[in-house]
Amino acid sequence: MPKEGFVTSITRQSEDFPGWYNDVVLKAELADYSAVKGCMIIRPYGYAIWESMQGELDRHIKATGHSNMYFPLFVPKSLLDKEASHVEGFNPQVAWVTHAGGKKLEEWLAIRPTSEAIIAESVKDWIHSYRDLPMLMNIWNNVVRWEMRTRLFLRTTEFLWQEAHTFHATAEEAADEVRTGLDCYVKVAQDWLAIPVIQGRKTEAEKFPGADYTWCIEAMMRDKKALQAGTSHNLGQNFARAAGIEFLDRDNIRKHAYGTSWGFSTRMVGATIMTHGDDSGLVMPPNAAPVQVVVVPIFRKDEEKAAVAEAIDKFTAALASTPEGKAVRVKVDWREESPGFKYNHWELRGVPFRLEIGPRDVAAGQGMLVKRVDRSKEPVPLMQLAAEMPARLAAYQAELFQRALDFRAANTHNADTFEQLRDGLDGEGGFFMAPWCGDTKCEKQINEEIGATIRCIPFDSPDEKGKCLKCGGESERRVLFARAY
Amino acid sequence: MPKEGFVTSITRQSEDFPGWYNDVVLKAELADYSAVKGCMIIRPYGYAIWESMQGELDRHIKATGHSNMYFPLFVPKSLLDKEASHVEGFNPQVAWVTHAGGKKLEEWLAIRPTSEAIIAESVKDWIHSYRDLPMLMNIWNNVVRWEMRTRLFLRTTEFLWQEAHTFHATAEEAADEVRTGLDCYVKVAQDWLAIPVIQGRKTEAEKFPGADYTWCIEAMMRDKKALQAGTSHNLGQNFARAAGIEFLDRDNIRKHAYGTSWGFSTRMVGATIMTHGDDSGLVMPPNAAPVQVVVVPIFRKDEEKAAVAEAIDKFTAALASTPEGKAVRVKVDWREESPGFKYNHWELRGVPFRLEIGPRDVAAGQGMLVKRVDRSKEPVPLMQLAAEMPARLAAYQAELFQRALDFRAANTHNADTFEQLRDGLDGEGGFFMAPWCGDTKCEKQINEEIGATIRCIPFDSPDEKGKCLKCGGESERRVLFARAY
Repeated sequence: MPKEGFVTSITRQSEDFPGWYNDVVLKAELADYSAVKGCMIIRPYGYAIWESMQGELDRHIKATGHSNMYFPLFVPKSLLDKEASHVEGFNPQVAWVTHAGGKKLEEWLAIRPTSEAIIAESVKDWIHSYRDLPMLMNIWNNVVRWEMRTRLFLRTTEFLWQEAHTFHATAEEAADEVRTGLDCYVKVAQDWLAIPVIQGRKTEAEKFPGADYTWCIEAMMRDKKALQAGTSHNLGQNFARAAGIEFLDRDNIRKHAYGTSWGFSTRMVGATIMTHGDDSGLVMPPNAAPVQVVVVPIFRKDEEKAAVAEAIDKFTAALASTPEGKAVRVKVDWREESPGFKYNHWELRGVPFRLEIGPRDVAAGQGMLVKRVDRSKEPVPLMQLAAEMPARLAAYQAELFQRALDFRAANTHNADTFEQLRDGLDGEGGFFMAPWCGDTKCEKQINEEIGATIRCIPFDSPDEKGKCLKCGGESERRVLFARAY
Repeated sequence: MPKEGFVTSITRQSEDFPGWYNDVVLKAELADYSAVKGCMIIRPYGYAIWESMQGELDRHIKATGHSNMYFPLFVPKSLLDKEASHVEGFNPQVAWVTHAGGKKLEEWLAIRPTSEAIIAESVKDWIHSYRDLPMLMNIWNNVVRWEMRTRLFLRTTEFLWQEAHTFHATAEEAADEVRTGLDCYVKVAQDWLAIPVIQGRKTEAEKFPGADYTWCIEAMMRDKKALQAGTSHNLGQNFARAAGIEFLDRDNIRKHAYGTSWGFSTRMVGATIMTHGDDSGLVMPPNAAPVQVVVVPIFRKDEEKAAVAEAIDKFTAALASTPEGKAVRVKVDWREESPGFKYNHWELRGVPFRLEIGPRDVAAGQGMLVKRVDRSKEPVPLMQLAAEMPARLAAYQAELFQRALDFRAANTHNADTFEQLRDGLDGEGGFFMAPWCGDTKCEKQINEEIGATIRCIPFDSPDEKGKCLKCGGESERRVLFARAY
């Protein structure tokens, strides 16, 4: 870590990753604990990051033909019970409303842990013929899953997310939709948050309760653990059968509709922190940064202040003179605090560029530009900088993505035996591509013994015969093992 | 109602207003009933209207310095109980979570009916000195109030809203903030939704439980009833005292912070419907209309279709050639249905302009423009229309506002006696400006006898000595009586 760092108040990432993570979240004021166990408060800076990824994902969801709408918070117990594997999967985590309006309720109401059950019940009245399909719905809401151990953003009792729910006339269309959903997530993760992801299919044990299969994207955090960054489920006709969603097809035969659902949540704020952050705190990818450039004025006397203010005004005016420049999120920090205090404040918050402008800079028509990710310092003529800022931010964004890609490549290994996997995970850690027979029993044993899960069967894992590292049975291709959030 | 109307499937507004309202909401697919009593499903068209007003209000809220954030859905019973009048006001409407994660909870959790209590508890750890103030927070979320009688959008057990919560160092700043909040609502109601509003102060009986005073905006619906369209509360030091929110002021004295809160909800979708709608359904103000111009192609043979398609492409391209034109939300309805079906569909949904283009129009280089609000028909050269469309939409928006203003003026009367008020309400209905002594007893008696409430004490009600129409006591100015949603 270069000595120019200003943030000293947080645990070092290399020494205690979970401690570092909590320090960053709390001290950068992204979120806070609440009076309700397991529920978090998302503070303005954290919420602005969420709003940024939410806005970007919403654009992708709408561009692919989905409409936003809203379904109730409550799911009557009888509805949740309809799809057998669904209720079995979620029942242990449900919060129940039993009293309301001063009375005991006749039927308990679940706070939605997800909305498949209430949606299936509703759409059966809207779907009559193939002409009503596909039905492409999306919902931004809050859900509740009662968790034993919670972590800010990563696993909270209540969280915010988007859940898409779609219905189709054919199995093929539903399968295509699973891809559409995953593509939206890949774009937001990689292009917006600069988080490289591995796409693949979940194992039977890890798939969504009630789904035929689940696709996912998995990302590597700076501690080399995996984080599931989005899932897209093919529900087949399971919920349609349970709820009775039938339509009259072109061939005049009544059929059950095919469903999908896919979700992306506030845990992606945590993923952004853990993919890019360093010992000094957050390192924000410019696209999602609430502030992209912070200008810190440096002066002692009043006449110095006036000159510095004038130079800053010229810079921001020049920046605003082009559409791309106008879109840059600049903040001039005029607070009555020392420059050091401000450097610390914005460094911790991961603002991509800091621009220091003092009296000597004004005389030279320049500013000192400091890049958060590597703390490189560079004096740049202000007018030139105003013209270059959009391109510099784009380059920074690409650099962060490449850095994360390189980090993941350097920490992904093959493991051919159980011992290699165990020793690898206990040693340097990372992602391990290893042969597996496809049996849930082996998967569970490995998990129990060394705490690793199969994150997914990556789509790009080539055919490669091998021996399952647990039972020695035949393996068709390597799958991705890791310890995970 | 002109004979050119196509929508015949809904109850006539003039014959049965509540029936008309429900028909519009259900048949224009704005919302639907759900499997949970009192909770509604907001369907894509209704949600798009909500997103439009939400986006506009969010811009005003951010422009006035407020930051979005998020607080938990749950409020522990002990917190809700802290502010005495607050709990008294909300307790009868609360839904309680008593079981979660397979266990009975030690403390019941309220689903937030509003967030003052949980916020007060949280911010006390964030506010230490006057430098931490003002704290200007805003939250977009869902709340639950167990209602006996519900109406889609207007009164639902769960609803979506925005709740701003602010804390200040002085009573003056808090008072200014109450105005800032109300101003945001006035702008959205009047400039975005074309709903004229009366600004005023709620009576003691009608103010928010826990507030020092409440300001509000009130609108007149087409059935001449009032609808409260937004409220802004001065909480004084009430919640700060209950929760212990103290700060060290400039004078080195520890003080309780001053609070405000203000909210605006999905009921405004209902207000938009009831302010502008007519016998044929919705009449959308252009600013908030998900579709502003619908183009209906008319053709029989394939070669006609090609020529019509070409003309439409030219029109949309011309429209998109300017920034203002590009922002116009145009939909070309190419569905395989009859023109009549489409006229009906979009008329019911209140799309401001319908543009019919058939073979003869193509030959003449024109289209037939039909204006939803008065069904006036006008042949317009297509290139001219493309250039004029933004201005025509702005004029339509202004026209709707003026129409609503005229309607309210025509249905607002003075009442000097109880009998005049009663007979007026039972007759033509409307808003009645009447003298009142200020006593809650009189207010309640009037409400019990004729179902009218004091909507507010309008800010622009001039000093005018009079006799309270209930007790004959002294009145300083007229107040606004109406029957209300």
